[in-house]
Amino acid sequence: MSLKFSQLGTRQTESDIARLMTAALQRPELLSLAAGFTDDRTLPLAELTEVAVSLCEEGDRSVLQYGANQGSQKLRKLMTGRLEAQDHAGWSYDLECSFISNGSQQALYLAVQTLCDPGDIVLVEQPTYFVFLEMLRGLGVEAISMPMLRNGDVDKAGLSNVLEAYAAAGNLDRVKAVYLVSYYANPSGHSVSRECKSSLLALLGKFDGTIALFEDAAYRELFYAKPFEAESSLALAGEGNDVPIFYSTTLTKPFATGLKVGFGYCTHGDWLDRMMAVKGQQDFGTANYNQALLAKSLETGLFDRHLGVLRKSYLEKIETLHIHLADTLLAQGWSWTLPEGGLYLWLMAPGDMETGFDSELHQAAIEAGVLYVPGELCNAGRSPRNWARLSFGVLGLEDLKKAADRFCFAVKHTTAMKIS
Amino acid sequence: MSLKFSQLGTRQTESDIARLMTAALQRPELLSLAAGFTDDRTLPLAELTEVAVSLCEEGDRSVLQYGANQGSQKLRKLMTGRLEAQDHAGWSYDLECSFISNGSQQALYLAVQTLCDPGDIVLVEQPTYFVFLEMLRGLGVEAISMPMLRNGDVDKAGLSNVLEAYAAAGNLDRVKAVYLVSYYANPSGHSVSRECKSSLLALLGKFDGTIALFEDAAYRELFYAKPFEAESSLALAGEGNDVPIFYSTTLTKPFATGLKVGFGYCTHGDWLDRMMAVKGQQDFGTANYNQALLAKSLETGLFDRHLGVLRKSYLEKIETLHIHLADTLLAQGWSWTLPEGGLYLWLMAPGDMETGFDSELHQAAIEAGVLYVPGELCNAGRSPRNWARLSFGVLGLEDLKKAADRFCFAVKHTTAMKIS
Repeated sequence: MSLKFSQLGTRQTESDIARLMTAALQRPELLSLAAGFTDDRTLPLAELTEVAVSLCEEGDRSVLQYGANQGSQKLRKLMTGRLEAQDHAGWSYDLECSFISNGSQQALYLAVQTLCDPGDIVLVEQPTYFVFLEMLRGLGVEAISMPMLRNGDVDKAGLSNVLEAYAAAGNLDRVKAVYLVSYYANPSGHSVSRECKSSLLALLGKFDGTIALFEDAAYRELFYAKPFEAESSLALAGEGNDVPIFYSTTLTKPFATGLKVGFGYCTHGDWLDRMMAVKGQQDFGTANYNQALLAKSLETGLFDRHLGVLRKSYLEKIETLHIHLADTLLAQGWSWTLPEGGLYLWLMAPGDMETGFDSELHQAAIEAGVLYVPGELCNAGRSPRNWARLSFGVLGLEDLKKAADRFCFAVKHTTAMKIS
Repeated sequence: MSLKFSQLGTRQTESDIARLMTAALQRPELLSLAAGFTDDRTLPLAELTEVAVSLCEEGDRSVLQYGANQGSQKLRKLMTGRLEAQDHAGWSYDLECSFISNGSQQALYLAVQTLCDPGDIVLVEQPTYFVFLEMLRGLGVEAISMPMLRNGDVDKAGLSNVLEAYAAAGNLDRVKAVYLVSYYANPSGHSVSRECKSSLLALLGKFDGTIALFEDAAYRELFYAKPFEAESSLALAGEGNDVPIFYSTTLTKPFATGLKVGFGYCTHGDWLDRMMAVKGQQDFGTANYNQALLAKSLETGLFDRHLGVLRKSYLEKIETLHIHLADTLLAQGWSWTLPEGGLYLWLMAPGDMETGFDSELHQAAIEAGVLYVPGELCNAGRSPRNWARLSFGVLGLEDLKKAADRFCFAVKHTTAMKIS
């Protein structure tokens, strides 16, 4: 095979995820606090099979036919309705602005692919969703971290300065979007306040609609006790605002990840048309059967009943992980905020302790038998380097305790090495 | 919304499919001989539900978990085994060369996206799969028709001249691949002979592996009576050949389109790695549940039993359509070859009768209540302009007869207009 690497297209890059997965595959005895997977034990196999049986009893074979490229109208109606209810919107969301994707990942990919050319810039939070960073690199788009406030929100005044600096340098046309992970974010667990969204919309509104807002709400439904108070940017902007908004979420992360169905909503017609043209080229539309299963699950209330089960389970798991880390890590100078939803604990190590793939801590963790995500992957500038993302999605309670113990052991070991 | 079209990325283009679908949606009373959909009546809803129930009884909830980016190992094993059997290959295909995609469309998209930069060239048959042409345009890649023999195969001597001309002009490095639709092609119904594949491999072999071969075998299993004799290019090339080969097919077009699962096989490791990196960014892997349903359907023999049903049904349908077109169209100077598999009739009108969207025939057909695909869409150079693709996938026998009558009426009307 002599097709040289240099003869392949130049659009692509290496993968951090691949590196993490390779480590996991090479050492199956490792316990993973890295993967953002959900818990097999809470996957609703019996319930979903009942849905499949009831679809069969209804006898509409077209659920196994190709569907529309933009997605099932029925499912999109259910989802825009759900969004209206979550947002307490005083107005109706527009069905024609919505589409169904292969998980929310594809929705994000389409949005970036059609909005940005190579060399363009997307402004991101610090930290941010690391697969999004990898996607931007893959599409030749530069990710730049925004200045952040201590409370985890974007520093609007700082961002305003950044944008002015781009304008002064004549580069403002390269800045295409601001990307927010707005509820129980991956990795930080942070939810973006209403004030922050509103002030961002006001700031971006000054740029004549040339800078879009991406709101990634993948974890919105995965609160533990009650929904976060802030509406989506769609509701806050209201009708007729000038900032193009792209909102995405997933129907399957909080239900059955193996069905892989996401939802996108875009307030800008031309942009959405472009996304749908590319979706037509990538796959012609998301698997229709999965959309039918999800529509039925929403209609019958199964989806919400199962969310109740999941929320309870995740709360129990994060508390377990937290408790088993707390004594050791707090004593070693680590700190974190316990989130109110989502799948992650975002830990800050003492400033001099690096956590990256090549760090002593990472090495010690693998030797102790546990995987985590180095925090630097979640930062556009690959810095700071002293954070770690732990996910409690996959493991059961007993394994979680074991993984926490192993992580603590690795931390103690690394700290002792430093001192000696 | 003031994000200007010019501010969107430049990667994308308009859609022929969208134009066809809009026509269909605006006039729901139209009978579609355009859509490449399958027949609702033959979709195996009851059978697939049984598969879902048996997955549930086995109790492995991980079918609802995220799967591997490259696809389920079990399904890939089943598919490489199936390919070996179809190809009577004297050697084993390599599981690590295979992957699962969101329909074969995504496999093709990934292959082009990672192989080609904007401005590159892919050589295509004339006619070729029009959605592939649209995908190339979307990715900024130029499609150039290859010289063809009367028997529908590529003219190897002519192609050799074309490649020499590119070399002489210093542009050979822009030519990245040859694309073949190799079994019961969309739209022509043609199958590429063993000799043609072998001679193409020999010709491309002279270019030091810089030109890849795409073999799109989407309709391979949809023969009516017996499989087409030619092996895939993977088998013909044998092990250790120098031409990078990308082979794609679908598990769901000949079964249940609404499950949307495709299969790709790539002999070139770096290229495949790139594809998998991009797939990781686009969606992280195809819906795991669908893969489990298909693996089980293959294992239990349901898949093959259902293929038997489909083959019989499609044979009956193509014969019905053929018979209802023959008298009128042959008398009007039209001609076609009856294919031995697939979902399409590819009709040549008299040379002076155009069939495009703006043609009198297309107008007359819509007025008569029937949709078809203008043949020029299937040609890289948008010429010749006197062909039409009719699909008999969707309609039942009675509607097929009605649609054929409407098409004949439109042809007679248009011919009469020309004469008068």
